[in-house]
Order: sequence, then structure tokens, then C-alpha cells
Amino acid sequence: MSEKQGFTVLEGGSVTTPKGFKAGGLHCGLKKTERNDLAAILCEVPATAAAVYTTNVFQAAPLQVTRESLVNGTLQAVIVNSGNANACTGDQGEADAYEMRAAAARRLGVNEKDVAVASTGVIGELLKMDCVRNGIAGLPEKLDGGAAGAEEFCQAILTTDLVKKECCVKVKVGDIEVTIAGAAKGSGMIHPNMATMLGFMTTDAVIDGDDLLSLLRTATNTTFNMITVDGDTSTNDMLITMASGLAGNEKLTRLHADWDAFAAAFTHVCQSLAMAIARDGEGATKLIEVQISGAVHDEAAAAIAKTVVGSSLVKSAIFGADANWGRVIAAVGRAGVPVSPERVDISLGGIPVLKQSRPVAFDEEKALHYLQKSDTVLITVALSDGDGKATAWGCDLTYDYVRINAAYRT
Amino acid sequence: MSEKQGFTVLEGGSVTTPKGFKAGGLHCGLKKTERNDLAAILCEVPATAAAVYTTNVFQAAPLQVTRESLVNGTLQAVIVNSGNANACTGDQGEADAYEMRAAAARRLGVNEKDVAVASTGVIGELLKMDCVRNGIAGLPEKLDGGAAGAEEFCQAILTTDLVKKECCVKVKVGDIEVTIAGAAKGSGMIHPNMATMLGFMTTDAVIDGDDLLSLLRTATNTTFNMITVDGDTSTNDMLITMASGLAGNEKLTRLHADWDAFAAAFTHVCQSLAMAIARDGEGATKLIEVQISGAVHDEAAAAIAKTVVGSSLVKSAIFGADANWGRVIAAVGRAGVPVSPERVDISLGGIPVLKQSRPVAFDEEKALHYLQKSDTVLITVALSDGDGKATAWGCDLTYDYVRINAAYRT
Repeated sequence: MSEKQGFTVLEGGSVTTPKGFKAGGLHCGLKKTERNDLAAILCEVPATAAAVYTTNVFQAAPLQVTRESLVNGTLQAVIVNSGNANACTGDQGEADAYEMRAAAARRLGVNEKDVAVASTGVIGELLKMDCVRNGIAGLPEKLDGGAAGAEEFCQAILTTDLVKKECCVKVKVGDIEVTIAGAAKGSGMIHPNMATMLGFMTTDAVIDGDDLLSLLRTATNTTFNMITVDGDTSTNDMLITMASGLAGNEKLTRLHADWDAFAAAFTHVCQSLAMAIARDGEGATKLIEVQISGAVHDEAAAAIAKTVVGSSLVKSAIFGADANWGRVIAAVGRAGVPVSPERVDISLGGIPVLKQSRPVAFDEEKALHYLQKSDTVLITVALSDGDGKATAWGCDLTYDYVRINAAYRT
Repeated sequence: MSEKQGFTVLEGGSVTTPKGFKAGGLHCGLKKTERNDLAAILCEVPATAAAVYTTNVFQAAPLQVTRESLVNGTLQAVIVNSGNANACTGDQGEADAYEMRAAAARRLGVNEKDVAVASTGVIGELLKMDCVRNGIAGLPEKLDGGAAGAEEFCQAILTTDLVKKECCVKVKVGDIEVTIAGAAKGSGMIHPNMATMLGFMTTDAVIDGDDLLSLLRTATNTTFNMITVDGDTSTNDMLITMASGLAGNEKLTRLHADWDAFAAAFTHVCQSLAMAIARDGEGATKLIEVQISGAVHDEAAAAIAKTVVGSSLVKSAIFGADANWGRVIAAVGRAGVPVSPERVDISLGGIPVLKQSRPVAFDEEKALHYLQKSDTVLITVALSDGDGKATAWGCDLTYDYVRINAAYRT
């Protein structure tokens, strides 16, 4: 347990920690190995809910179904499968997504319009619906309000991910302690396997639905959207949040005295999951954090941060522990936003390598040691054009990335 | 020799084939190995000249010097080095570029204002000017109007390139045969080594300077600009063209009856060099050609083509001979331009894999064979939104790309 700005991180907490939530998962046959591939989260009550979706023109069938369920602003359950994205699957894919929703609603005893559907995996193949049907039938008995249920859920949503991703925090709203948690899948910042990122957040806070959606959007912009390269988005990206309201706090709105603390806690969960996704990038050996300051505005800083962290050359250099700052400045210069070229400072892990756009003599041995030994490589770029700042996260580009992606379908 | 639309490709022709041009190169000590690293092209007369430059915010010192030389619209010589980009080198770098120009002018006996300077290699290191000075002193005796001089020149501009890139064509203007040639360096479409692309074109045509610049810009847009990913440009990219006028044809302008034939021939040289750069991409085993049709307009088609050919996932799949069209459609959908998602056709090497956005049952063996055996992989995407079309070129993403770029400076 660690104290942050007004909230507390709960080690070991997960999506079932907030009051009212159960989760679980099982293997139904969509993955070739015996790993879990079907899962659900169930809330005791209809929860205030919000979601953000991929901006890709091509959107998988489950997104349409989930959008429809969310029209009334509530959800009571989420059904999710891995191993197949149910994307570009036409009318049959749509019918399958609706059937998943109906079957989950029936087996979990909730209103069909309160069920979200999410899928992740290969594009363009029809779901094996017999597996899905049998799996859903077996799900209710797997659901559990403790750590075991959350564990099974987290495992079931993974594809090429090496580790599960979860985060849980507590924050005071008035006298009441509320809990916010999240679980996510995604293995790489570079648009890794098409159906790349899914995120599920739960909280027991009482919160206004519109404000929850607006908080979700704001938090996503500085966290999950800062681990995508050049706006890369898959056909299936989705982030869902459900608020059970069972903590019984005074209703949170933007005007509530504790809104900022709640928002900071909520954003922390998003950032923690986003960084975990970047760190677990396909083939990655290091997390890369790029901090930009002094840009003309925050949007410009974000564009630069994402360009640098997404550069194949920067990523390869970090893998090779090569302090090649020339690649960083070249990426800064092609981000498509105004930059004063004569006044740029760059540091690698706190070691200045460029001052006012002039190379600084630095200790190459020290830089090499930093790049070789650090689990997280920090690149800071200070511009002199304004107050805009942003942080983006990514990972290095390695032989394993190529190996994993050269034969994903086989 | 092969006939194309109104022009003839001259196998073995190079930048010295058009009348009036000599070229040559030597090793002066900028590269660690004994390979050539300094070169020049010299024209008998001041040539009508034009250039296009990188759009990167950070521009290397030689670009500024070349821009200044081109103010009067003529060039008589180009001096170029590899092994060092002379970028982010501050006032000293600027002084060095000016000194390169002055020394070349003096040694080659031409006006300083008629000399262009180009550099390519590592960013942020000062040029070893003693090597450059000695090298320039030795250059005049190396210049040669035949194939040998062109060969030395082509070798001298390479960095991680495996092969030299040149192209030469002949085309009739009235009764007169004029020749257009080009040489380029660049080893990879993905912004390969920062100071990535340099191109030098020569012709003996008599041509209006404004029309030459406008032709250069137009031709670049559909050729060299279609091998960069997401508009990636380095600090040193430059394409220079010089027209000696020694063919003695009636002056070419946009209104000349043979303008279209000349423009087609000129564009062919650009396209041939651009494709050669993509094919010689760092670590590449295959050229990838992406043809888009039916987009809302040509600009949209170009954006989609570049997004597809630049996708790490598409590139890895091609390396793995995996007919993973899901990655193609996902890239189409994130290109940031309007697309009707329900009406997309995709073929790989002429094998339809998606029709009206629905998967087509295709022979996986046949697709595998095509992807494994083809030197060039063709991806065609037909949209139903208009008449816009574009072609982009790239290469596969391989283990060798990572190996080459993990330790470029060492």
C-alpha cells in the first residue's frame, strides 16, 4: 500500500475489490492452448457506466453491440473473449455478438441491454459459437468476488501479453472510502495484434454518468492514448468503466469538493494500466518514457512525445543501448508541430546530451550503463516555445517483436 | 534497353550519360572502412537547377548552403560526403559546409554560388575537415565523363545501402534525343538512418528553370514521397536536379508538345530510384508495393497507401509470408481519411482475400507460395468512395532491421 496525492494504491487489488463486483474466466476453446479465453464481470446492481472506443473506421461487431447497450448509461455485466476479434466478420459476426450478449444476460440473470460485449484476437474469422455458448453456460459458477475471480478474469483477456495488468486504488469522498480498479490487456504500443487493447474499470463510487464519461475521456487522453503510435487504433479497442455506487458516498460530480482527488485516483489507474501495456509490449525489454516540456501547447507536446516514442529508430537504439540522440531530435522535427530548432535540450536518464540544439560532451560509458541497466529509459526534451507538456510511453524494438509478428496467425 | 511510354530506359546509364556531366568519388577518411565517402558531379556549363528538401524542422547545415547557391537557379557542381550528416553541429557545422562549398568551387574552377553541398551519415558530430579538405583537393583528377566516374560517385554516397541506385532514360524532344539520369542513396523507407535520402539527377535537356522545379516537385510527390512512412523526413534529405542544356533541343516548357513525354521520362527516373531505395531498405528481403484505388481523392489514397506500407504489422507479416489481411484493413481504417467500411476489396498478389469487406475463402497454400517466392509483394486495396488512387513502396520488417539499427553509431 502506498500513499499518492490524496489516494492510496492497494497492491493486490483488482476489479473485484470495489463493492458489488464479481469476476471470473474459463477456457472454452477459442485459444489453441488451455489458457482462459472467456470471462465476465458481474455487478450486483445496474452500474452507472461509460466507455470509449477505437477511432478506426473498421469497427468490430462487439463494439456496435456495446454501444447499443450503453445508450441508457448503465451496465450490469461485461462478457469478453480472447482468441478471436470478431472483426470483419459481416452479418454473421454481428449476429454472433448479439447472441453472446443475449446468452450472457440470460445466464447471469441481468437485462440484455445492460451487458457489454468485447472481443480480442485474430481478425476476419468467425467465432466458434458452440465453444462460446458452452463457455457462457459454465461462467456463472466461476464468478467470484475475491482475488481468485479477478485472477481468472485477467488471465482470460490476454493474447500475446506475458503478464496480467491490474491496478486498484482507494480514495476518500467525504468520509467514505471508495475504491477504483482496472484490468487491461494489450501487448505492445505499436498496434500490436490488431485487436490490441481492452480495458475494464470498476468502482463502487456513486458518480454522475455524464461526469464519469467525461472523466474517462480526459483520463484516456493522457494515458491510454499516449501509448499508441501516430494515433494507431485497432478495430476492437475499448475501455469500459462501471460504477456500482455501493460505497454510498455523496454523489460525485465535477462540483464535488473531492472531485479532483477522485479524478487523480481514477487517472492513476488508467496510467498504471497504460504503462503496464507499454512495458509488456511484444518483444520489449524496456519501458520508454518520453517527457516533453516547453511546447507551444499540450497537444503539440503530445504529438511530439508520441512521434519520439513511436520512432522505430529511437526504439531500436534503446534496444541496442545506443545513446543516439540524433534520432530523438529528428523525430521531434518531424512531428508536424512548430518547434524553434535552435533551442532544444535533450537528456537521456537525466544525462544532458543536447543543450540549445548543440551536442553536449557526455560520458558515453555512463550513458551506456544507464541504457543497459535501466528497466525504464527516460527521454526528456525541453523546448522553448511555451508551456505545453506531455508524457508518452512505449517500448524498445527487438528481434522478438519481429519474431512474434512474422507469423501471428500460425 | 526497354521501351516505355515514349521513352527508352538505358541499362547501364548513369549521371554522366547526359551531355556535359562528369562525376567521381574517393575515400577521404569519413567512413571507418576504405569505402568512398566524398564525391562530386561537375557540369561543363552552369546548369539550370532545382532542388527539393526535407520538411524536417531541423535542417542540416549543407541544406542552408545549397538553398543559398540555388537562389540564382543555376548549379555547376555538387559536392557530397557520406559518413557524417553535418546536422545539429551549430555554427561550426555551418562554417564547415561553407568551407566545403568554397573549396570545391576553387578546385573545380566554378563559381562558389553554383555549388551545392550535401551530407549524409551520423547526426551531431563535426566533420573531420582535414579529411574533407584533402579529399576535395584530390577530387578533380578523379572526375570522369564515363561509367567509371559515375560508379565511383554512386559508391561514395552510400551509407548502409547494400547496392548503388541509378537510372537513365532517353526521350525525344522534337527531333532531338535528350537524356535524363539519376543516382540516389537511402537504405530503407522507415526513415532509416536519419540522414536518409539524397538524390542527384542530371539531364542535357534545355528546360525552363521554373518548369524544372515544378516538375521536380510533382514527380517527387508520387515517387520519393511515397516511400516515406507517415511523412518521415530526415534532417538532410535533398534531391537536386541539373540540366546542362547541351542536347540543344527547343526549350522545354509546360506548353511544349513533348512536355508530357519528358515529364513521364523524368518521373520514371524518380520512381525507379525511389523503388530501389525501398527495395534496399535496411534488412529488407522484399519490396512491398501498395496500390490504392477508389479513394475519395488522390491525397486520401496516398495517405492510405503510406499507412499500409508503413505498418510494422503488415511489414512483419510479409516477412513471415503470412497472408494476414486483417492488418491491411486495420491500417486502411486508421489512415485518417474517409473510407466506406462496408465496401473494401483487398488482394495479395492478385489473390482476392476480402470482397466488400467480407473475408473470401482463398487458397492459403497459394498465398504462402506467392509471399515466399515473390521478390515484390503487391497489395491492392479497392475502395468505393471515388476516383482517388496512389501507389506506395516499402519493404518488410526483419530481424536484420533491428540488428542494423540497434547499434548504428558503434
